[in-house]
Amino acid sequence: MNFLEVTYRLAPQIDDAEALAASLLLEQTVEVPAPVAARDAHVREHMTGHVLRQRRAPDGALHVRLALPAVTAASNAAQFLNVLFGNASLHAGVSLAGFALPEALRALFPGPRFGIAGLRERTGAAGRPLTATALKPAGLALENLAALCRTFARGGIDLIKDDHYLADQPRHPFAARVAACQRAVDETNAQTGGRAVYAPHLSGLPEHVRRQAETAQEAGARAVLAAPMLMGLPAFAELVRCHVDVPVLAHPSFAGHGWIKPPVLLGRLFRLFGADASIFAGHGGRFGTAATTCRALARALREDWHALRPALPMPAGGMTVERAPELVRFYGADVGLLIGGSLLEAGDALLERTCQFTEAVRRAASGADR
Amino acid sequence: MNFLEVTYRLAPQIDDAEALAASLLLEQTVEVPAPVAARDAHVREHMTGHVLRQRRAPDGALHVRLALPAVTAASNAAQFLNVLFGNASLHAGVSLAGFALPEALRALFPGPRFGIAGLRERTGAAGRPLTATALKPAGLALENLAALCRTFARGGIDLIKDDHYLADQPRHPFAARVAACQRAVDETNAQTGGRAVYAPHLSGLPEHVRRQAETAQEAGARAVLAAPMLMGLPAFAELVRCHVDVPVLAHPSFAGHGWIKPPVLLGRLFRLFGADASIFAGHGGRFGTAATTCRALARALREDWHALRPALPMPAGGMTVERAPELVRFYGADVGLLIGGSLLEAGDALLERTCQFTEAVRRAASGADR
Repeated sequence: MNFLEVTYRLAPQIDDAEALAASLLLEQTVEVPAPVAARDAHVREHMTGHVLRQRRAPDGALHVRLALPAVTAASNAAQFLNVLFGNASLHAGVSLAGFALPEALRALFPGPRFGIAGLRERTGAAGRPLTATALKPAGLALENLAALCRTFARGGIDLIKDDHYLADQPRHPFAARVAACQRAVDETNAQTGGRAVYAPHLSGLPEHVRRQAETAQEAGARAVLAAPMLMGLPAFAELVRCHVDVPVLAHPSFAGHGWIKPPVLLGRLFRLFGADASIFAGHGGRFGTAATTCRALARALREDWHALRPALPMPAGGMTVERAPELVRFYGADVGLLIGGSLLEAGDALLERTCQFTEAVRRAASGADR
Repeated sequence: MNFLEVTYRLAPQIDDAEALAASLLLEQTVEVPAPVAARDAHVREHMTGHVLRQRRAPDGALHVRLALPAVTAASNAAQFLNVLFGNASLHAGVSLAGFALPEALRALFPGPRFGIAGLRERTGAAGRPLTATALKPAGLALENLAALCRTFARGGIDLIKDDHYLADQPRHPFAARVAACQRAVDETNAQTGGRAVYAPHLSGLPEHVRRQAETAQEAGARAVLAAPMLMGLPAFAELVRCHVDVPVLAHPSFAGHGWIKPPVLLGRLFRLFGADASIFAGHGGRFGTAATTCRALARALREDWHALRPALPMPAGGMTVERAPELVRFYGADVGLLIGGSLLEAGDALLERTCQFTEAVRRAASGADR
């Protein structure tokens, strides 16, 4: 019999956490009182799962690990989420701290189709961290966004992504923006011999996303950006599986904080659902993320796990050019450093600042090679 | 100029909450340092928004209200969520406490197409609370699920919904289950003269959901159940807008707790996105929800707001038959009482217990009529 193993963290302030922990087994399986489940032989024998263990963490939180029958979760990727953390997520102070998959559920997911190796091949960035930046702020005229593309590509950036606030606004409609930015990157690549990749942001209802994916690829986009929690993880899975043939960079917008631990959501789940790279709030930036969280997140994206391709960790959210050497030491070479504001602050000296960034990363990487 | 007004709550334990509150304005608009935004005239004048006010609540939390330019959010319902609570959601201790819409954004959303009045018309439940129950546990054989339908319909239940763990499992595949349950309800209605409605659970990737909606309606389903946060709110919006002609009951699975306040997420947002009824964890049940939260949630679903139809509040999660009179007093007549386990515990006396429930609600409603 196959089980999905799930670990929930019950915050220290929860009264009678042991009783709640035990009740979560029913909550995530049959959702009826135990005597009702026991009345039916099939339900009793195959649908109820069991508690694997409870332990108190040093911070007073209670961690409970449950074995949930895989058969309930195996219909599709959405139903998997339902069993993983559907009703349990509605309890104050209960968060999803981890999970382990049986092979039966692994088959529901594509995982990264390109991953770190595919992104390196596409950009020509071998043996060093990738450099990335964002086209912003939203509201710039198309010619200014295209000019940013030219400068970033000329400065040696590998991945130039739309800001996630760029959608399909009158000031920069999707199709016109993608055409202008892709052309700017292509022309610059032709001049420099570089292989910068532009990643337009796909967003909207599933039908919008499907059409945008088509438009982007027709325009020659060699990657796309999408926010899995914003479009919904099932729509993201469908996008990856059916509508794009290029790498997908995942953006954390609308992911919330803490209800699912970032290494689980932006690490394991995004990788499982098919993200080739995962953007997250890096330590020392605007979001106050702990370094240990970033380390765990990078591990979840890169470690050996169910033969899934490793996905690229992309710390962001207030990273600076000056910190490039430190960040390379922290993450190693298999990382994408995403720096936006710290480049744009240079104003008219944007090209010089961009070169400073990309050269710092190259230098740090050769120094960090041991 | 049109603004989306958003209120974030910053938890008391956040250090320097005032500075973080002010920074959220940039986070949710241009996402660059202020001097960078100021360099472009259009961005400076139209894209940056402003802080409306900050106030300390008695519990020490800081509430900040921002005016965000509607133009950034107006592309579609997904982009609206991005601007509403995209990056801000990534901050520890920051939750979405409220929002107000300009008419320009109201047009993005269908709202309930049936609402409370439509559900009353469909079920024949006039001037009293609706009664509802769930088909569970998952794992029952099809004939047992159909037998539950017959008993519930015979006992006078208005809305018989799939348990949200019923997906497309081998034990009860979607199409066969919907056909069997719908037939059972139809046959019983024909015998009793009742108008019980069966609501199958649609779940999966957008393409699965679209096909299930078609199958369900072809089988004669007169309502459906869907979990907006599980499928993703944009996929839910597309379902409502394009793929179903019957009322949609929203289930809270995978909604998380606290990162968006339940009255905002399960109340305002679900209603806006098109839920005709919203199921939530009621006070006094398994989830420890406060009565004040339930009252605010019911208000958000029912109050006059942008000419949207009122949606039906459906408290659930451990409600009991014995509490029916109290719950009717608390919510009034415009409510759907969703009781599952407390009926199923009756075992062989399920029909009697069901009648006891539906009669208690009828009696309480006539007593509560003032």
